[in-house]
Amino acid sequence: MHKIIKSRSKNRGLPPGSLVYIGDKKRDKTLISLIEYDEEFFEQRELKLDDLSELDYNRKTVKWINVEGLYQIDILSRIGEVFDIHPLAMEDILNTDHRPKIEYYDKYMYISAKMLFYNSKDNEFNIEQISFILGSNYIISFSERDIDVFEPVIKRLQQGMIRERKLSADYLLYCLLDIIVDDYFNVLECISETIEAAEDDMINHTSDKTLITINKLKRQVLFMHKGVWPLRDVLSSLGRGDSHLIKEATEIYIRDLYEHVVQVMDTTETLRDILSGMMDVYLSSTSNRMNEIMKVLTIISTVFMPLSFIVGVYGMNIPNMPELSWRWMYPALWLVMLSIAGTMLYYFKKKKWW
Amino acid sequence: MHKIIKSRSKNRGLPPGSLVYIGDKKRDKTLISLIEYDEEFFEQRELKLDDLSELDYNRKTVKWINVEGLYQIDILSRIGEVFDIHPLAMEDILNTDHRPKIEYYDKYMYISAKMLFYNSKDNEFNIEQISFILGSNYIISFSERDIDVFEPVIKRLQQGMIRERKLSADYLLYCLLDIIVDDYFNVLECISETIEAAEDDMINHTSDKTLITINKLKRQVLFMHKGVWPLRDVLSSLGRGDSHLIKEATEIYIRDLYEHVVQVMDTTETLRDILSGMMDVYLSSTSNRMNEIMKVLTIISTVFMPLSFIVGVYGMNIPNMPELSWRWMYPALWLVMLSIAGTMLYYFKKKKWW
Amino acid sequence: MHKIIKSRSKNRGLPPGSLVYIGDKKRDKTLISLIEYDEEFFEQRELKLDDLSELDYNRKTVKWINVEGLYQIDILSRIGEVFDIHPLAMEDILNTDHRPKIEYYDKYMYISAKMLFYNSKDNEFNIEQISFILGSNYIISFSERDIDVFEPVIKRLQQGMIRERKLSADYLLYCLLDIIVDDYFNVLECISETIEAAEDDMINHTSDKTLITINKLKRQVLFMHKGVWPLRDVLSSLGRGDSHLIKEATEIYIRDLYEHVVQVMDTTETLRDILSGMMDVYLSSTSNRMNEIMKVLTIISTVFMPLSFIVGVYGMNIPNMPELSWRWMYPALWLVMLSIAGTMLYYFKKKKWW
Amino acid sequence: MHKIIKSRSKNRGLPPGSLVYIGDKKRDKTLISLIEYDEEFFEQRELKLDDLSELDYNRKTVKWINVEGLYQIDILSRIGEVFDIHPLAMEDILNTDHRPKIEYYDKYMYISAKMLFYNSKDNEFNIEQISFILGSNYIISFSERDIDVFEPVIKRLQQGMIRERKLSADYLLYCLLDIIVDDYFNVLECISETIEAAEDDMINHTSDKTLITINKLKRQVLFMHKGVWPLRDVLSSLGRGDSHLIKEATEIYIRDLYEHVVQVMDTTETLRDILSGMMDVYLSSTSNRMNEIMKVLTIISTVFMPLSFIVGVYGMNIPNMPELSWRWMYPALWLVMLSIAGTMLYYFKKKKWW
Amino acid sequence: MHKIIKSRSKNRGLPPGSLVYIGDKKRDKTLISLIEYDEEFFEQRELKLDDLSELDYNRKTVKWINVEGLYQIDILSRIGEVFDIHPLAMEDILNTDHRPKIEYYDKYMYISAKMLFYNSKDNEFNIEQISFILGSNYIISFSERDIDVFEPVIKRLQQGMIRERKLSADYLLYCLLDIIVDDYFNVLECISETIEAAEDDMINHTSDKTLITINKLKRQVLFMHKGVWPLRDVLSSLGRGDSHLIKEATEIYIRDLYEHVVQVMDTTETLRDILSGMMDVYLSSTSNRMNEIMKVLTIISTVFMPLSFIVGVYGMNIPNMPELSWRWMYPALWLVMLSIAGTMLYYFKKKKWW
Repeated sequence: MHKIIKSRSKNRGLPPGSLVYIGDKKRDKTLISLIEYDEEFFEQRELKLDDLSELDYNRKTVKWINVEGLYQIDILSRIGEVFDIHPLAMEDILNTDHRPKIEYYDKYMYISAKMLFYNSKDNEFNIEQISFILGSNYIISFSERDIDVFEPVIKRLQQGMIRERKLSADYLLYCLLDIIVDDYFNVLECISETIEAAEDDMINHTSDKTLITINKLKRQVLFMHKGVWPLRDVLSSLGRGDSHLIKEATEIYIRDLYEHVVQVMDTTETLRDILSGMMDVYLSSTSNRMNEIMKVLTIISTVFMPLSFIVGVYGMNIPNMPELSWRWMYPALWLVMLSIAGTMLYYFKKKKWW
Repeated sequence: MHKIIKSRSKNRGLPPGSLVYIGDKKRDKTLISLIEYDEEFFEQRELKLDDLSELDYNRKTVKWINVEGLYQIDILSRIGEVFDIHPLAMEDILNTDHRPKIEYYDKYMYISAKMLFYNSKDNEFNIEQISFILGSNYIISFSERDIDVFEPVIKRLQQGMIRERKLSADYLLYCLLDIIVDDYFNVLECISETIEAAEDDMINHTSDKTLITINKLKRQVLFMHKGVWPLRDVLSSLGRGDSHLIKEATEIYIRDLYEHVVQVMDTTETLRDILSGMMDVYLSSTSNRMNEIMKVLTIISTVFMPLSFIVGVYGMNIPNMPELSWRWMYPALWLVMLSIAGTMLYYFKKKKWW
Repeated sequence: MHKIIKSRSKNRGLPPGSLVYIGDKKRDKTLISLIEYDEEFFEQRELKLDDLSELDYNRKTVKWINVEGLYQIDILSRIGEVFDIHPLAMEDILNTDHRPKIEYYDKYMYISAKMLFYNSKDNEFNIEQISFILGSNYIISFSERDIDVFEPVIKRLQQGMIRERKLSADYLLYCLLDIIVDDYFNVLECISETIEAAEDDMINHTSDKTLITINKLKRQVLFMHKGVWPLRDVLSSLGRGDSHLIKEATEIYIRDLYEHVVQVMDTTETLRDILSGMMDVYLSSTSNRMNEIMKVLTIISTVFMPLSFIVGVYGMNIPNMPELSWRWMYPALWLVMLSIAGTMLYYFKKKKWW
Repeated sequence: MHKIIKSRSKNRGLPPGSLVYIGDKKRDKTLISLIEYDEEFFEQRELKLDDLSELDYNRKTVKWINVEGLYQIDILSRIGEVFDIHPLAMEDILNTDHRPKIEYYDKYMYISAKMLFYNSKDNEFNIEQISFILGSNYIISFSERDIDVFEPVIKRLQQGMIRERKLSADYLLYCLLDIIVDDYFNVLECISETIEAAEDDMINHTSDKTLITINKLKRQVLFMHKGVWPLRDVLSSLGRGDSHLIKEATEIYIRDLYEHVVQVMDTTETLRDILSGMMDVYLSSTSNRMNEIMKVLTIISTVFMPLSFIVGVYGMNIPNMPELSWRWMYPALWLVMLSIAGTMLYYFKKKKWW
Repeated sequence: MHKIIKSRSKNRGLPPGSLVYIGDKKRDKTLISLIEYDEEFFEQRELKLDDLSELDYNRKTVKWINVEGLYQIDILSRIGEVFDIHPLAMEDILNTDHRPKIEYYDKYMYISAKMLFYNSKDNEFNIEQISFILGSNYIISFSERDIDVFEPVIKRLQQGMIRERKLSADYLLYCLLDIIVDDYFNVLECISETIEAAEDDMINHTSDKTLITINKLKRQVLFMHKGVWPLRDVLSSLGRGDSHLIKEATEIYIRDLYEHVVQVMDTTETLRDILSGMMDVYLSSTSNRMNEIMKVLTIISTVFMPLSFIVGVYGMNIPNMPELSWRWMYPALWLVMLSIAGTMLYYFKKKKWW
């Protein structure tokens, strides 16, 4: 199960903008790579730290600098200096437990989002934070480890889909966010399949495990909701044209993306309601099961207690029991006892106890 | 039961605006038909793909192009080209799991809604998406399969109700949406009848099936709510006059339709509350049933345990039991036992246990 | 119990504004009556359909035309024509399952509200819709059957309360709505008395019926809430001066009425919370009852099982049981058994089981 | 327990503004008293009805007219005439079941609030309505019975706290409302003490009474919430400067008072949550108790049933039971039985049943 | 456990602005200390009451006056006079049970917040109120006792981090609030660790204590939520630039802090949901446990009751029991009884009862 929150204790008391990475060490070295393209040109290569400042930022290409691994604070702080990133934005990049947010600075904006990866082995998803710095013609993306989520976008750019290449960095940002949101649907699909499986399970037999599964699913949907919800506001702000960095032509795409996130939210709520319903059914089936057990006990007790009493009566050593001398006593007794048992069973039958 | 969400995995990583149909293959071939009319004129005919570009769009008639079947992507993409529909709108048309939405483009608007069909066989309704492109004097409707929902509208147009024909394409859009919303009431009626039946059922005898019925109804009301709710915002936006495509005379009709959708929402909420109440009653009746069973068990045990103890006493083989030599021992014992049993039963009677 | 929703299936597929009455046939004939008054003049008489068009609408009196019975569609459609009422408004008048609404037209406004009548026989209230058309100096009211709710208003007008007669049609509308809202308080009072009775009942003994009563009350409060809630928006819109038909002097009365409706809403919510609390108490008292039953069973079993075992031991036919030859065996055994029983009972006493 | 709502049936059908007192008769005679002061002057005296019109309203003093007892309608209606109070405001003064409200009239404003008195005898609070008419230099307060809540304010004025006397009637209104809100905290304190006591009670032993106490507390918190909540809007409206009757210097005090009311609301919500938590704990402890009872029953049954069976076996009268002839049969049987009992008990011990 | 609310009864009836300290006496003497700095200069020293008025307020340094201990009302009232603090602000400083608030005065603003200290001994946190008066170049902080929370800030200022020293008093306020909010995360971490421990506990064995732990945690999260929530509005107001005392350069920091508080709120809600889920699992596991107990009881009863009956039959003293004379009666009886027991056990096995 996820840790509920990551420890920030290293952070306490430091001046604002101090760079402290609060995540696990997922990657030793920080890797920087560059994708640069315009309508006719496409290049993808690894960068050294020193190359960063030597890039030609006046050239009219779109530059996408991808930083993987947040453990080497010194390298990250150097990147921050080269691009003149506000210390608070740098702090946010490293604070990987924060909710998605957007912050507008003078020359760039900071956006963070959560990537969800479904891990089919233990039926859970992992959450990773990705941060973007969007400038006029560049994007810098920061992730905790190597990610191949963006491969399809890179391939599309490489294969020269001209329409996409024509558009500027804000459109690239949209493409990257779009593929992240696409993965949300993937995770939702996996969760809803697990739910359907658990439901079939539940109908067939009630085990303690069902409850734990439901609870685990509930918690996952909860984490998903918390991780995706703020992205709605981020996209809403982007799509409203709050910044000149987002061109008008891109806004319609952002709004479409916004609709997708709303759809994701809608679906998580549906899943939540379905899981609540399942919980109710589970609890109620526990009660029904108890009822069934009680019925068995009651039927057995009710049938045999009177019978045991009767045989007890004739086990007494009292001398003067007149009926004992009757000849057909024994078969008559059996008759009586059988008819008592029969009456009882008929009574329970009529009460629909079995 | 419905699949909770449709798989979009085919969609992942594709550029925005890629046409991927995520539904089931409900119709092999895509069928295009045209209804064209003005005050004096009415024509209904099937169209070939090539006819589309040859239609006379300057003529002052209302054109309704009805596209049934979304499986033949190539045909749909061709339609998109002819009418110059934005790739995102085309994507939305094919993405049949999306929530109802409205999007304004320069020359047309995109509207999608959910149609509900009640399937009386398995007491469930199916949801199908329908999309509309509303231009200045044409409507294009896209549906997953042949639908005869709109028959009454077509008949009204055909029979020459002049008032209706006078009005333009936006009024036709209203008529189509109106009939979709009318069907919501139909579904609500069916659901509420099922609820009333389940309620009668529950009062008469409590079975496991009641719970499952309640849960299934709850889920249906939930799906209905999720499918209809966003239509409220769509109609609210239409009725506010956000677009010049909706004429002022039509707005009052749209507002009326909006009221109907609000009424639908209200009713789904009422149904939800009623189902919750039923769940409570069901759970509580389970408890009451358990109480009843326990009472039977307790009465039987409480009456026979002391009696069995007494007859056990006189079954002992201890030599010196003075009372055994008493002559009226046997009838006296019966008297004692009957009075014990009587006292017990009187006690339970007084406690209102039966 | 109420039908949850009224059938609208007759309505489906008809053009908007088609007149279909969805209620039950509560009155065969449609009855039209007129009350006309000004400061010095008061007249009340029955009208024929043809009289309607011959009334002198320029005369400076307030005219209140009361239409009772909605079953004769032809008469109603004729009334609609005489007063030039929009087809959608006419549709709303007949659609008696709709929520209260207000709609402004050019020369008049349409308002609908729900009247609640408490039926003390089966402890339920009935809901009836009433619709008003408010013009500059006339009101038309439409109700499903004869209603004597408005008697007090008519009497006040008749008896010549000059202050009231001076004011125009909008003030009359306020008076009519006011008396409808007054009846809400009456219904609330009846419900809360039923609740108090049910509460006393519940404390004294727990029966299955309590649960059903609570659930029925819950549902009634729910229906009341749904029926009254939208009236809040109607009055809020009226009181804000959205229409010139409401004079400024009347607005303060409308706002006061609005406050009353808010009070009604508040009270329904309070009732809802109280009913929820009762449900909790009921369920918990069921559990407590079960506990009590279990205790009786356990005490009896725990006392008699060991005793039965002991007497069983000395009922065995094993030859060499040394203690049997002891002289005081029998009284000693009773002593042992009584002390076991005593210990058990003391133990339960200490555990506060009784 | 409180009556849930007061009867308004006397009110029905009367013209708006009719004076009907809906409360109980708490005071026979209506008592009018006057406090008049300015910076240098202070006077407190009883007033006759006729004195009212003879007061010098041009004099630059603050006049506070305190009306106690609402039963003598004629006197109240006379007061209304003298001060030219709108009939609706007069109706509100007598309608003591209404929620707190504010209404601005031309020359004065009407404010009503709820006073809460904690009655330590039956651990409940009483709600009384107080209404104020605030004019430019006078306040009229209306209460159902003699109240000494305002004593501290009167004393402060009397003892000549000059700062307070300098300020005008709106500041006096603030002082009166402030002391009412102070009493809310008092009531909250009493309730929270009762809660803490009930909690200690609950941990020590579970009785039916705990549940009733929790439910009673819940209802009280509910009534308190309903009674105080609207005051928030009243104060918010006052503090926003909606009326010229509130001077700017007073607004900061009103805003502070507003904060206090928000704090009260916050605390009621906290109490509500705490009571819900207690309910959960109570219900769960009922279940735990049941578990405990069941365990005792099961242990006893499980130990003695097999033993009783064994002794039953050797109580049979079947002739050829070879083991009976064994010499050590009796002690061996005891050994067997003790070891069975021991095994059972060990098993339950291991399962942590006791 | 916390007292739910602090007593304010000392406060009742006093004029507004009366200084009454409602907290416990946490510190006898009130201690005043001064930290003064600018870019080149740093000084920290204790102040006497009289020094306050002699400070040079025109000098362009930032002054931070730290007042610890609120018990000596006279000293506090003197401080209020020196800085000309509004009586209501002084009242708020002493009213340590109030929710965080902000109030703008002409020359300064009043801000209060809650500090949370986790007390690892009894797994609870304490809440303390801290108030700030922010003037143009000074801050006065008021706390109930000595606090070393701010040590890191003081150290940073002392060690001459020039960037921080350059900025003015509003930035210092941000630093102080920032460190308070950092402590919230610390508390959240501790709570979530306790939750995780309780969860492990619950899965392993169900005890009454789990319930109490869950309830205690729930209440703590509730108190935390109530204490932090209003800070959101405070920071939102500060970050919007409502006051000239907050410079534009500081606003971005305030907004960042606002985001942190939102994150805290988000996490408390997550914790709340997780605790609710745990409660459900706990309650359900109680039911499951009961089921298990019932099963044991039922199996034992069902197996031994028929057997006891059978041996009872052959314990009867009825003369003519033909089967008794059969030679193999005894072993045959055992066979019958074993097969009955076996059948029963097989039946329960098949029903998955064990």
